[in-house]
Amino acid sequence: MMLRANFTLQKTDGSARRGTLRLTHGAVETPAFMPVGTGATVKGLTPDELRSAHSQIILANTYHLWLRPGLEVLVAAGGLHRFMQWDRPILTDSGGFQIFSLQTRRELDDDGVTFASHLDGSPVRFTPESVIAFQEAIGADIAMVLDVCLRLPADPATVARAVDLTAQWAKRSAHARTRNETATFAIVQGGLDRKARESSAQAIVALDFPGYAIGGLSVGESREQMHELARFSAELLPREKPRYLMGVGTVRDVLTAVDCGIDMFDCVYPTRCGRNGRAMTRKGEFAIRNAAYVRDFSPLDPDCACFVCTTFTRAYLAHLFRSNEMLGPRLLSYHNVFLLNDLMRDARAAVEAGSWQKFRDSVLHA
Amino acid sequence: MMLRANFTLQKTDGSARRGTLRLTHGAVETPAFMPVGTGATVKGLTPDELRSAHSQIILANTYHLWLRPGLEVLVAAGGLHRFMQWDRPILTDSGGFQIFSLQTRRELDDDGVTFASHLDGSPVRFTPESVIAFQEAIGADIAMVLDVCLRLPADPATVARAVDLTAQWAKRSAHARTRNETATFAIVQGGLDRKARESSAQAIVALDFPGYAIGGLSVGESREQMHELARFSAELLPREKPRYLMGVGTVRDVLTAVDCGIDMFDCVYPTRCGRNGRAMTRKGEFAIRNAAYVRDFSPLDPDCACFVCTTFTRAYLAHLFRSNEMLGPRLLSYHNVFLLNDLMRDARAAVEAGSWQKFRDSVLHA
Repeated sequence: MMLRANFTLQKTDGSARRGTLRLTHGAVETPAFMPVGTGATVKGLTPDELRSAHSQIILANTYHLWLRPGLEVLVAAGGLHRFMQWDRPILTDSGGFQIFSLQTRRELDDDGVTFASHLDGSPVRFTPESVIAFQEAIGADIAMVLDVCLRLPADPATVARAVDLTAQWAKRSAHARTRNETATFAIVQGGLDRKARESSAQAIVALDFPGYAIGGLSVGESREQMHELARFSAELLPREKPRYLMGVGTVRDVLTAVDCGIDMFDCVYPTRCGRNGRAMTRKGEFAIRNAAYVRDFSPLDPDCACFVCTTFTRAYLAHLFRSNEMLGPRLLSYHNVFLLNDLMRDARAAVEAGSWQKFRDSVLHA
Repeated sequence: MMLRANFTLQKTDGSARRGTLRLTHGAVETPAFMPVGTGATVKGLTPDELRSAHSQIILANTYHLWLRPGLEVLVAAGGLHRFMQWDRPILTDSGGFQIFSLQTRRELDDDGVTFASHLDGSPVRFTPESVIAFQEAIGADIAMVLDVCLRLPADPATVARAVDLTAQWAKRSAHARTRNETATFAIVQGGLDRKARESSAQAIVALDFPGYAIGGLSVGESREQMHELARFSAELLPREKPRYLMGVGTVRDVLTAVDCGIDMFDCVYPTRCGRNGRAMTRKGEFAIRNAAYVRDFSPLDPDCACFVCTTFTRAYLAHLFRSNEMLGPRLLSYHNVFLLNDLMRDARAAVEAGSWQKFRDSVLHA
């Protein structure tokens, strides 16, 4: 029997959902944003800061952790949580996306995929089974199945094969799992093809996973296509299971995702923007390096209660970025993560209160 | 009348001194290490972290702040303290060292020095008066006089002229100061020449500054020469005034400086080491990237109580540095600053207890 991630759907408001996902390292109130800590660190932030920014769950990545520091070190450390000193839930992505999107040599066969490490070129072999075993061994709260990710555009035969193989691998992943403390989520693929997404969802839903992700979106298609396919894909998934839209993290996109009935999303966007001097607010984004901010002594985001916005001015942050001071990326990454978590908290309250549509529109049309 | 920095010499033990320096933004218990925040930020650390690492006073630099963000922004911000949100004392260096050591065009005359900004090549003029005015305007607790720094080796005539001009400029600085909340310190120069240092000290001590720095050391001479000249220079300075040895920040050097009767020192060393993966401990330094630490699950420094050492393992820190993750430099910079501040706290206690020599030897010969 497959372990059921303990998901309670408390309330819906239109398609928007308010739930609680109980995992080994604690409960995640959904909808929830998950900051990305690819290599066992959310870039620039300490675990304490992630907690104070109200992060409930973070991501890490099997591809990167497999290559460095590797299974042996992570197991000897007592697992990923102890290694990085993060005591709340961790979802580990399977690495499928990395293998198929990084410009490395790879050979796909029905049994798995062999690729060259981007660190030293050495050959690495991933199978559905080995990827589940790795994620269980390092103690992930949620493990993702190994999937075949497409580079778009792709012809129908290629899409069909990727969907078919992803479904076969999902089945093998379901059989491979052994650890009750790790919930395995399967991934809907199918590119931009609705029929392919339908057959992908059908195949994996039949396997009764405790949660489902929507993959292969937010990879370069238009925002409208993304939103349309996210909604279409979400509706193919069982109501009582958590739904995770992979790779989404702008204010507009996460709100639209919630509106599509998505419960969880992740993206490097807020931390990558933070490193590059791009400040996120509910009212839009801006480049803090801009000359307009050099003499602006107002808070970064006057509507934000994070320690960056309540401590420092735009002028100081502009100075840090213009001087290439590492404190700048740190502070802006913190703010951006706080902002998205804060937005999700308000989104949850709005769904609870039955005022989701009003809340969504108040942000999207501000 | 020149404002006296309110310095109380509480206890001596051999040449080592235990004092309290009262400044506008608070008291500094000496001997004290001052982390360097050249551009209005101690690289990678927040003001909160500097406080939790027990920093009592930090440095900033007139040369860098003059060029960026500039006087207008700093004054509009309400001064340097408010700009960077550091509420404890700040000592600003005059920029003499930068002008004479950076590889920029410069022209020295008796009245001042004109140099090309390293940012855009535009000409900038510093005089003793303008540099004091700048430091007072941004609200420094301690301002340093503009000095003429030598590139060594230098012939006796060059040394003599630098010493003479530094003394003339110190006199003009003493007359230029207007603000009681900013204490102006003068600087002993003279390269490696004892006679020159003697005449430099004589000239500036006669001007009755509230504190004295020893400059032009720790710039490439041997450690033995540095120690010998620091001791020699310290003994030329009045007992009742604080003594500041510029540019010193290794465990061995700060202990030797205290042993020479120095009260304050600054250096980029702990934060620069931190960024480069070099961990400081009382027992020596090591490169955390070293293969030996990849599977070492002990604390960075088992003798340190800082949050880095009580939270993370060497294996995790090694992983961060090997992965070029920005959290690594942050954490190691924090530890190194904490370590030096902690060492100074114990040094103060040892002088108070009359066990300075024993303490010094226990660290230096461990």
